[in-house]
Amino acid sequence: MAESDEILPIAGIRLAAVAAGIKKNGNEDLVVLVTDESSTCAASFTKNAFCAAPVTLAKQHLSQHPPRALLINSGNANAGTGETGMQNAQQSCQWLAEELGVLPEQVLPFSTGVIGQQLPMPVLQSGIKQVTAKLAEDNWSAAAKGIMTTDTVAKAISRTVLLDDKEISISGIAKGSGMICPDMATMLAFIATDANVDAGFLQQSLSLAVDDSFNAITVDGDTSTNDACVLIATGKAGNKQLTESSQDSSHFIDTLKEVCLFLAQAIVRDAEGATKFVTVSVDKAKSKAEARKVAYTIAHSPLVKTALFASDPNWGRILAAVGRAGVQQLDISGVDIFLGDVCIVRSGGVDSEYTEERGQAVMNEHEIAILVELGRGEESATIWTSDLSHEYVRINSEYRS
Amino acid sequence: MAESDEILPIAGIRLAAVAAGIKKNGNEDLVVLVTDESSTCAASFTKNAFCAAPVTLAKQHLSQHPPRALLINSGNANAGTGETGMQNAQQSCQWLAEELGVLPEQVLPFSTGVIGQQLPMPVLQSGIKQVTAKLAEDNWSAAAKGIMTTDTVAKAISRTVLLDDKEISISGIAKGSGMICPDMATMLAFIATDANVDAGFLQQSLSLAVDDSFNAITVDGDTSTNDACVLIATGKAGNKQLTESSQDSSHFIDTLKEVCLFLAQAIVRDAEGATKFVTVSVDKAKSKAEARKVAYTIAHSPLVKTALFASDPNWGRILAAVGRAGVQQLDISGVDIFLGDVCIVRSGGVDSEYTEERGQAVMNEHEIAILVELGRGEESATIWTSDLSHEYVRINSEYRS
Repeated sequence: MAESDEILPIAGIRLAAVAAGIKKNGNEDLVVLVTDESSTCAASFTKNAFCAAPVTLAKQHLSQHPPRALLINSGNANAGTGETGMQNAQQSCQWLAEELGVLPEQVLPFSTGVIGQQLPMPVLQSGIKQVTAKLAEDNWSAAAKGIMTTDTVAKAISRTVLLDDKEISISGIAKGSGMICPDMATMLAFIATDANVDAGFLQQSLSLAVDDSFNAITVDGDTSTNDACVLIATGKAGNKQLTESSQDSSHFIDTLKEVCLFLAQAIVRDAEGATKFVTVSVDKAKSKAEARKVAYTIAHSPLVKTALFASDPNWGRILAAVGRAGVQQLDISGVDIFLGDVCIVRSGGVDSEYTEERGQAVMNEHEIAILVELGRGEESATIWTSDLSHEYVRINSEYRS
Repeated sequence: MAESDEILPIAGIRLAAVAAGIKKNGNEDLVVLVTDESSTCAASFTKNAFCAAPVTLAKQHLSQHPPRALLINSGNANAGTGETGMQNAQQSCQWLAEELGVLPEQVLPFSTGVIGQQLPMPVLQSGIKQVTAKLAEDNWSAAAKGIMTTDTVAKAISRTVLLDDKEISISGIAKGSGMICPDMATMLAFIATDANVDAGFLQQSLSLAVDDSFNAITVDGDTSTNDACVLIATGKAGNKQLTESSQDSSHFIDTLKEVCLFLAQAIVRDAEGATKFVTVSVDKAKSKAEARKVAYTIAHSPLVKTALFASDPNWGRILAAVGRAGVQQLDISGVDIFLGDVCIVRSGGVDSEYTEERGQAVMNEHEIAILVELGRGEESATIWTSDLSHEYVRINSEYRS
């Protein structure tokens, strides 16, 4: 477990994981999370146009009713599966709804695993019976393991915060070890809190938190067909309903951001073949969009990523990435670039005090920070990424062979 | 030599290459190309904001006088070298200008090689004396070798075309084996013709040809600080001056495109660690820009590139790349995807006749074609790329160690 084996239960949430037999290795592969009727729910989904059947169906269900259950399988993404895939997703929701005595539209389905294969429906049907028999409040760790695919560690975290003089808890689990794993549809995060939160403000909080966490990480620039993040608030903590205008609203958002950022960074740390954890910050940009564009251009550059893997302080590659990021009328004489606390580029040229030894010392670390100051404004952005290693190529080229 | 050892001399052009001592391995590293006074010249330069000193100076000189000479060194990019780098570029032009009896502003400088080191000026000075003593019309092959850095083969081609009943020749050389080689500033192409061509039409022709060739290839998505392509027309063939309205204008453009496309594809074939030559075509798009965006998203995807390396018909990765390419309101039910002549995706889902064996047969080839039909319009684009291999990571991570 990435943070701690002790994930706080959330009043109003019961969950369970079983090995239904979808994964060939016999690991847990079916997770159900059930929430009380009074809950509110927010969600964020992949923007990939080829989104998988469960994503389409989950969005549709969410627009009809507040959800009562999440049905998550790992081992099979139910993506690229056409009409049959959609029917299977619907059937799965119906089976779980019958077990729980709720409407099929109150079940949100999520799938992660191999693309292009149909779900093994009999296996799923018996798995749903098994898993609902095991529902309990303290199964968060099992659930974190049950949603893993190529992940090497389970990812989970809890945080508490005082709201309206009540201690409220937020617990979350996530899976992912590449933006798309080999054939895998990747990033899933499920977060719950016992806080009483207005639905509109819950969605607003999640959007803000996701933007600076799950939407600020990249391993290989590929966006999955199945990415999703769900946040449920059960209201059991008994605080006065939190809205945008509540005095404590920023405390809630900050704590939620902390949870999302931990989970997002855990995904990068577990990235396929990663040997480095890299923070790319861009400061003094004209807009946040501009800052992010420069940061992503650096983070996606195969040349920067292979230099990071080699612990090579090859600042020319960072500089070239900044130069091609498409910033309009970039005056390079205003650009400074830092590797850790070592200035490598000052006013667009090599810093006069820069030495290869100083750059090398930073590059030898496991955690590396790259900072670019554009000298154009007040906006900034930070993203997190990994290096490009032999192991990345091995994992992604040998997966199906 | 990629095309043939027999590169046609171009009347009015003399050139030479020497091993001046800039490269540590003792290979040719200094090339001079001299053109007659009556020539016209067109050029296309990198859009990287951090363009190298010689690029800045070449652009400046080009705006002042029609050039009389190109001065090209390999082994050192003179990039990221600040004010000293600019003074060195100017000094080099002056030395060559003195040898040739032309103005320094009539010399265009080009550098390719390691970033961030100053040019070895005494070596360059004596090299310029040596190389000007060897100028001759039939040194194209030597020049092609002299501009190489990490290239494994020299790249050169000649084509002839009838214009105004005169046979005119076009000869070109290029270097590059990655968009940026390790620390290298990469793509350079020098093309000359004996045709008599109006300067405005020459630039127009080059822009068209570059757009569909050098601007349609990608190895790793990185754009160099030193990329440049120059086209000189000496007019010695004696044809009536070619302008946009000439009857033969399209023949000239087509032949020039053929030359540029051959050189561009030769760069992809020689890409660092490449084991596959991949053509990505996108058809039935709303605009050419949209078609290119989808094609580049596929070509830059590390997951698609590692699948190509593994000869794995992993169509889910191509589909996911199409889905995240940012096409507005993409209706996936209109999308067909082909691997060679095998349909893998029909109307947004796996084609009913697709089998892994049929996909595998295509993927086993060295040359692979991916075709995406978006079903949205009449526009199309084709680009060329390579796979992502262990060798790419090795070359780019071990280069400086």
